[in-house]
Amino acid sequence: MTAPDEAPLTPDQLEAALRQIGAARYHNLHPFHRRLHGGACTRVEVQAWALNRYHYQSRIPIKDATILARMDDPALRRAWRQRITDHDGEDRGGGSGGDAGAEDGGIARWLALTDALGLDRAMVTAGRGVLPATRFAVGAYVHFCAERPLLDAIASSLTELFSPQVIGERVSGMLAHYDFVDRAALTYFTRRPPQAERDAAFALDYVRRHAVTPTDQQAVMAALVFKTDVLWAQLDALWHAYVAGHPPPGAWQPTDDAKVWT
Amino acid sequence: MTAPDEAPLTPDQLEAALRQIGAARYHNLHPFHRRLHGGACTRVEVQAWALNRYHYQSRIPIKDATILARMDDPALRRAWRQRITDHDGEDRGGGSGGDAGAEDGGIARWLALTDALGLDRAMVTAGRGVLPATRFAVGAYVHFCAERPLLDAIASSLTELFSPQVIGERVSGMLAHYDFVDRAALTYFTRRPPQAERDAAFALDYVRRHAVTPTDQQAVMAALVFKTDVLWAQLDALWHAYVAGHPPPGAWQPTDDAKVWT
Repeated sequence: MTAPDEAPLTPDQLEAALRQIGAARYHNLHPFHRRLHGGACTRVEVQAWALNRYHYQSRIPIKDATILARMDDPALRRAWRQRITDHDGEDRGGGSGGDAGAEDGGIARWLALTDALGLDRAMVTAGRGVLPATRFAVGAYVHFCAERPLLDAIASSLTELFSPQVIGERVSGMLAHYDFVDRAALTYFTRRPPQAERDAAFALDYVRRHAVTPTDQQAVMAALVFKTDVLWAQLDALWHAYVAGHPPPGAWQPTDDAKVWT
Repeated sequence: MTAPDEAPLTPDQLEAALRQIGAARYHNLHPFHRRLHGGACTRVEVQAWALNRYHYQSRIPIKDATILARMDDPALRRAWRQRITDHDGEDRGGGSGGDAGAEDGGIARWLALTDALGLDRAMVTAGRGVLPATRFAVGAYVHFCAERPLLDAIASSLTELFSPQVIGERVSGMLAHYDFVDRAALTYFTRRPPQAERDAAFALDYVRRHAVTPTDQQAVMAALVFKTDVLWAQLDALWHAYVAGHPPPGAWQPTDDAKVWT
């Protein structure tokens, strides 16, 4: 990274440095990612991944609302607000609460996957059995976005620069390898890439324009490193618990009913 | 756990329930604990444990200051303040900053261990190479104590009910099995048990007197479960990174110099 007493990077140099962080540290390099997409996961491992990843997904609009609350500029808020809409959906059903009437949101689409995997929806939405390490990583992300400068919070979203390609691998790999996953269960992933591309382009433009001092450039690079750590730690915990077979106390375990499907 | 609409537990029943949580979930049950104390760890694993555990230790007085800042009662603050003194030590040397002049504090004693293990002190105190999962778990603990009711924050310290026995095992096991650890390096552990016993007795008395409704009793049990998760997750991450051999990007790795000692 650049020391604060050096000359600032140009916007293109900064973007290249950020893309290099993704190339070195994004969780598509994690063994669990390769195992999931390559068809080597058991059904229980896919279930555990979906349960834990749902917890992450469920906190994204909260993280984005935290960022929204720190933006002084209405134009910036209008742009960022779309992220919350994408995840929570539109209320078309008379405000009946929860997920009803919001079948078009990312969270509802993720629940379609956990439903298809046979996970109890009440358990999933309550977060029962989620790995503590998942909660701690996700909580660190939400707190980071609440406590660090707005520039850092926006920069931490830049992992989305790297997600569209990964999502494509995920859909094709999961459809090819797991007969308990069909295209309907993967709607989240087929709908997500254009949203992620739009969001990442917006955040990248913001960071290129606002991170102009070496200190700020170092901070946005550190924010992206932090976020890759948040994602990586979740897959480490999944691997340790469900691949290596060391679930911590209280973690989700397949029921006898679920085992029939394995 | 007790449902809120049931009768409250007596203080003795509540204490028994809290001790049962420790018996089922305290990290002395973790395989890494057994490996460490049983002499099966490599020097690199002991180094990684000490580096990561230092990060936890370094945040304890910050956690306690957060709790202190939420106490209205001067008598309560006087009692709780001792915890900070125990960790940070007394300034005997004219305010020279950092660890100088505070050789009698728990943090300085922990640094004596990391020194004895050959870890660079500047790396240790800066937290370089600490596992992200350690940071996330420790951060969750600090945030818990800042954000939850004071009763829950105090209850989350009750893992100290279970620590004196474990510390005894640790000292005897480490002295017996590792020739790179001597008694001087373990001063933290020989000095800690009476402090932990005093602190645990104080917190237990507070919880017994203040957690009188089923809702509050359920909350203090959940706080202790949460804290056991914080400790367990740190050992899970150590195991995955250094025993199973999957260190995440940026994690500490032994230098060539350190490898000579292994």
